[in-house]
Amino acid sequence: MKADLLVTGISQLATAQGAGPKRGAAMRAVRVTEHAALAVADGMVVWADREEAWTGEAAAAIDVGNRAVVPGLVDPHTHAVWAGDRLADFEARTSGVGYEAILAAGGGIWSTIRATAACPEDDLAALARPRIEALLRSGATTIEVKSGYGFVPGAELTMLRAIRSLGASTAARIVPTLLIHVPPRVASDRAAYVSHVCASLIPRVAQEELAAAVDVFVEKEAWSAEEAEAMLAAAHNNGLAIKLHTEQFQRVGGLELGLRLGALSVDHLEACVPEQFAAIAQSSTVATILPGVSLHLGLPPAAGRAMIDAGAAVAVGTDLNPGSSPLFSAALALALAVRLNGLTAQEALVAGTVNAACALGRTGREVTSRGRLEAGLAADFLVLEGSDWRDLVYTLGANPVRDVFVRGQRIAV
Amino acid sequence: MKADLLVTGISQLATAQGAGPKRGAAMRAVRVTEHAALAVADGMVVWADREEAWTGEAAAAIDVGNRAVVPGLVDPHTHAVWAGDRLADFEARTSGVGYEAILAAGGGIWSTIRATAACPEDDLAALARPRIEALLRSGATTIEVKSGYGFVPGAELTMLRAIRSLGASTAARIVPTLLIHVPPRVASDRAAYVSHVCASLIPRVAQEELAAAVDVFVEKEAWSAEEAEAMLAAAHNNGLAIKLHTEQFQRVGGLELGLRLGALSVDHLEACVPEQFAAIAQSSTVATILPGVSLHLGLPPAAGRAMIDAGAAVAVGTDLNPGSSPLFSAALALALAVRLNGLTAQEALVAGTVNAACALGRTGREVTSRGRLEAGLAADFLVLEGSDWRDLVYTLGANPVRDVFVRGQRIAV
Repeated sequence: MKADLLVTGISQLATAQGAGPKRGAAMRAVRVTEHAALAVADGMVVWADREEAWTGEAAAAIDVGNRAVVPGLVDPHTHAVWAGDRLADFEARTSGVGYEAILAAGGGIWSTIRATAACPEDDLAALARPRIEALLRSGATTIEVKSGYGFVPGAELTMLRAIRSLGASTAARIVPTLLIHVPPRVASDRAAYVSHVCASLIPRVAQEELAAAVDVFVEKEAWSAEEAEAMLAAAHNNGLAIKLHTEQFQRVGGLELGLRLGALSVDHLEACVPEQFAAIAQSSTVATILPGVSLHLGLPPAAGRAMIDAGAAVAVGTDLNPGSSPLFSAALALALAVRLNGLTAQEALVAGTVNAACALGRTGREVTSRGRLEAGLAADFLVLEGSDWRDLVYTLGANPVRDVFVRGQRIAV
Repeated sequence: MKADLLVTGISQLATAQGAGPKRGAAMRAVRVTEHAALAVADGMVVWADREEAWTGEAAAAIDVGNRAVVPGLVDPHTHAVWAGDRLADFEARTSGVGYEAILAAGGGIWSTIRATAACPEDDLAALARPRIEALLRSGATTIEVKSGYGFVPGAELTMLRAIRSLGASTAARIVPTLLIHVPPRVASDRAAYVSHVCASLIPRVAQEELAAAVDVFVEKEAWSAEEAEAMLAAAHNNGLAIKLHTEQFQRVGGLELGLRLGALSVDHLEACVPEQFAAIAQSSTVATILPGVSLHLGLPPAAGRAMIDAGAAVAVGTDLNPGSSPLFSAALALALAVRLNGLTAQEALVAGTVNAACALGRTGREVTSRGRLEAGLAADFLVLEGSDWRDLVYTLGANPVRDVFVRGQRIAV
């Protein structure tokens, strides 16, 4: 066998086994190969096993010095494109000012919407680039990025073009999503906006291939399940996958809608009740939980442990955004899921690789869609600082990731 | 005026004002100077004000590019010296195995004690060095490090010598503490151990100047208040300051003992009740809270907000240790104190600078003991990544600190 690169000195090669989203007890299926090596050619893994078993030839070799290697992480939920900042909001909220009062003063999400809508495409991409680089450095080799701060359709298109431009200028694999966010409360005609989204925005996004999926925010204060269904149906009719922000604060039918329509994922789920876990487990939909929001806002975390115990497939995302989750690390998102949502280290690795990839519909061989590092799969992997792979979710406050490889190339970040 | 170095381009120079530990409402006293500059000579600040007011001469200049500058942080509570690891414990605990069962199987703190006691001084220092570097990179220019995993007196001395060696080989200012930890349950004669600590270990530590303070762990499962008092009295008689780990799980008189004996700080305090806050507020003792433990173990956080409201002086530490707080960032400790303990950004800056310095008895002019950056005080400061100083406690998962200066020198970390 011939390879471009042989990676040796791997103390532990830890991978998430099996195809498709991992559910329930299967989420603990992590395989650890000790004293391993990994061979890469043309950006793909061509061989991975115990180092002593290698008999091929490699054009180059790297010894990682008795460190653990894990698959590249997938961050399935970010709002990494925004303008302005929310530091004044942060100060007000942490000083005891209520969210409603902040909104009434023109702060909160309105300030981000105003700043983002006023920002040219190139500037939006430039502002987002260091955030993407931070996520990449933290181990996320595939990153979903949503629009959604635009509101007026033209601004959504600008955001999606900024995301496309980002994708062309970073080593990370960027997966764009059209998010139809909470409509402005000043909107006098919600029905007209829904119609426009269905008849014009979604078809245009599909035609220009600006997004892989449409995500709708279903909440008492946002879209109703009925309004969402119209937009998600339009997405489906235009060949786009669907996702939902739902059950964050209330239950207004979003979860059931998502499962019925075959959503790739239902995201947030802090307000889910146990009776809903079995329904998720019986569906093809991934439950994406977002522990950064729980930490930042001090709200109860989603019941990740109970969802897995009920048989659901759980993924974890950063939800990177300036208002409710300024979390710039995919590794820390997994570490928080262990502390706040009750996942084990194994479940966190599965949640951050194969399940997150499935939440993005990224199951092709060209990406590290299954959390595995085997011949024929993409050579997206991380060299950790430590020799034990569990350090990925154990260490707090320092980056456990030493080197990031995408398509077999070490990324300078 | 002549300076060695002029630092310009400071968007905000944010400092904690005033002398002594900041209490209650005074903990919000942060002064922000915009468009600032800072001049350094011989490792000390010689001038700091608005940039336009500078009229002196500097041998060198650095433009930090419109970024915020804050004082170097003080981490007043770490156990950064240990051997072995606790990853197997971490996996067991997060998989539902109880702490008692882990201990019974020879894990938990026993595994750290065994590994540490068996580790030579040089190896202990070498293992600790990257941890200290991580804390320094996160903004901690002064770092307390405790012994306490030795148990047999000789091993405690080895730990303290390793800490001294660490201090000589890092740019961070290291403050060593002799910790008398939970005695082994196998100890057949607690009284004899206390006698040995009082009559031999403490005098020797004082004589060799191996520690600045003695810290005793008072808890139902550890030392009683009576046992602690004997050891703290010996510390006092040998000219050492005193501190206590107390009120972490139960109230067995540790807090009241610490206040009565004039402890520099009482640390943990998760089990404190409101009636105790006023007593802290009326004392000269700093209340040091440790949010990393709350996050890592999922235990209720200390009531930082209520303590400050009652008038107490609160400091924040990482409690870096392998079992209950693998938190390698002083900045993240402050960020967690905002989320978990209810501090404001201003209070967190005060808690992580002036109050933490007072918790270490470091109030001299040679250290950044007061959170100020003014003529005559040490030039320990941080250049943040962002232009708003509040980013120090807002950002999660990425290091908000771009450059660390100790004694006016930029540290390569």
